[in-house]
Amino acid sequence: MTSFTTEHGPDRGTPTIAQIAQELGVSVPTVSKVLNGRADVAASTRERVEAALERHHYQRRKAARPAEGTGLIDLVFHRLGSSWSMEIIRGVEDAAAENHVSVILSELGGVHRPPRAWLDATLLRPPLGVLMVASRLSPAQQRLLARRSIPVVVIDTDGEPPADVPTVGSDNWNGGLTATRHLLGLGHRRIAAVSGPADMLCSRARLDGFRSAHAEAGVAVDDALILPGNFYVETGYSAGHELLTLRDRPTAIFAGSDMAALGVLRAAHELGLSVPRDVSVVGYDDLSMAAWATPALTTVRQPLAEMGGLATSMLMDLVEGRHPQTRRINLATELVVRESTAPPG
Amino acid sequence: MTSFTTEHGPDRGTPTIAQIAQELGVSVPTVSKVLNGRADVAASTRERVEAALERHHYQRRKAARPAEGTGLIDLVFHRLGSSWSMEIIRGVEDAAAENHVSVILSELGGVHRPPRAWLDATLLRPPLGVLMVASRLSPAQQRLLARRSIPVVVIDTDGEPPADVPTVGSDNWNGGLTATRHLLGLGHRRIAAVSGPADMLCSRARLDGFRSAHAEAGVAVDDALILPGNFYVETGYSAGHELLTLRDRPTAIFAGSDMAALGVLRAAHELGLSVPRDVSVVGYDDLSMAAWATPALTTVRQPLAEMGGLATSMLMDLVEGRHPQTRRINLATELVVRESTAPPG
Repeated sequence: MTSFTTEHGPDRGTPTIAQIAQELGVSVPTVSKVLNGRADVAASTRERVEAALERHHYQRRKAARPAEGTGLIDLVFHRLGSSWSMEIIRGVEDAAAENHVSVILSELGGVHRPPRAWLDATLLRPPLGVLMVASRLSPAQQRLLARRSIPVVVIDTDGEPPADVPTVGSDNWNGGLTATRHLLGLGHRRIAAVSGPADMLCSRARLDGFRSAHAEAGVAVDDALILPGNFYVETGYSAGHELLTLRDRPTAIFAGSDMAALGVLRAAHELGLSVPRDVSVVGYDDLSMAAWATPALTTVRQPLAEMGGLATSMLMDLVEGRHPQTRRINLATELVVRESTAPPG
Repeated sequence: MTSFTTEHGPDRGTPTIAQIAQELGVSVPTVSKVLNGRADVAASTRERVEAALERHHYQRRKAARPAEGTGLIDLVFHRLGSSWSMEIIRGVEDAAAENHVSVILSELGGVHRPPRAWLDATLLRPPLGVLMVASRLSPAQQRLLARRSIPVVVIDTDGEPPADVPTVGSDNWNGGLTATRHLLGLGHRRIAAVSGPADMLCSRARLDGFRSAHAEAGVAVDDALILPGNFYVETGYSAGHELLTLRDRPTAIFAGSDMAALGVLRAAHELGLSVPRDVSVVGYDDLSMAAWATPALTTVRQPLAEMGGLATSMLMDLVEGRHPQTRRINLATELVVRESTAPPG
């Protein structure tokens, strides 16, 4: 059983659970139930207790480390995609095994903010820490976990998490820049882009890199050639069809992901266009299929497994009370040139 | 804390923990530690206690169901592959969410038998039940879990698990038969096969289906055209190179998996051969990439997500003390004809 005394720190005047219970006129077990995420507390009482805990900046002392091999961490995807998710999972699994903790995998069914039910179940469990992929907690949810000393690290953040939440990502802006410089360097002047979801920082950064490369080469971007997408193969396919049937079609397409690039390749094939003779295509991610596509994809490599591994190490540091030296890490991306790009025909 | 009395059943004379302790001349906590998988028991003592528990067919009474939303099940892969694993994971995640349990994901680093360390950590946790994919427990490990009332269901078994272990798979023999009938029906007479690992039942069943289709068509199988593989893209690529550079090369190749088929497509491309004009290729699995490959793959669809979901439902039935009506379920496979197969040129 966890002790309920609070940590001594800057806030040394912080009250005990008993004092909070007395202040609210509820029982000590009631406050303790709210802290433990138990459901058998009336919603209105829970809200009052949560508010009091927050007002007093109450923070539970970290629970004793569980027995070797029984610790759990949560790995939360907004959506389990294909190989992209698997690469991250592999990196997390390897680092978790090194740290003798197990990984609970869950997905949020496509939304970027966990529902209350997810948080309730998590608090009941509770894990040593939480890794969120392309998703993040609301500030209130963040505080609920922080008050219980459950650290969170975000992988490939979709937006700006609170300043004290560590993030691990990759250099998306540089990835967009390098891919586009490669196409410009081959002589392309009409370059299209299939972007990722507009609400994800990574898509915006890649597109900004795309624009920057044009600017430094003194080539104007034709905004009509920038189509929205969502990283999935279907949007690459439909965007590819749209772009490649334009009267003045682009000579190169920077797809938002390898899966989108696969959709573009498919559209080109159906339209009787040869890649790279008629159109060059650049992917993003360097999933294992990229090297095996026909033609093999030129793409920007994201070190997804390393991102997962590094985020896990950072999380375990926080779990063990060590503070990371930096809270924002972006690993380098790298252009991998294969067969899908060539000078314009 | 779990009570240590045993279940009443056919074995109503079964002794208590105290009696077992007395018989062996060890303390009650020692027997209890062995049952809980704790490491702080001398190996020789643990062996003696395990032997006594087994001799007496001791079985712990099932622990009380954990609080709603806190139950865990283990999902164990021998190796986390790409989309193949992801499809199974998705099916398991969906069914687990319906049952309000969370999924702990682990991989065995490529071996089909969990090491003792995995079992020790699992017993410490312990989960409500265990799903094993393409891997299984030794009879002794199986008994260790059974004695603690932790049920196991095997997905896509690699061999013959004990008779009381439920399995969910798909009809691999029929998949091999249907794929080969399709090629024979198109007029192919020299058909190669890239098989899966010889120690996995599913590969042997597919290959037997391949042979059966030949037999019913009165076409001889040329054993020189059956190459070993492991379902990964690299072995498809090397087997493809080997087969397609034979003087009397096959006019069709039945690859062991979609990934292997992708390797064959790549080998054909590098050799300047066109698929399906010069050679037909059939995959296996119907991963999402199969529809998006160029040419789109003709393949045998395995309902991987359904297999994961069904196995999870069976496991939860066992957890809740309901006995499955059948312990061996093979879901149907289905041929999906796309662009990679045609009559021989």
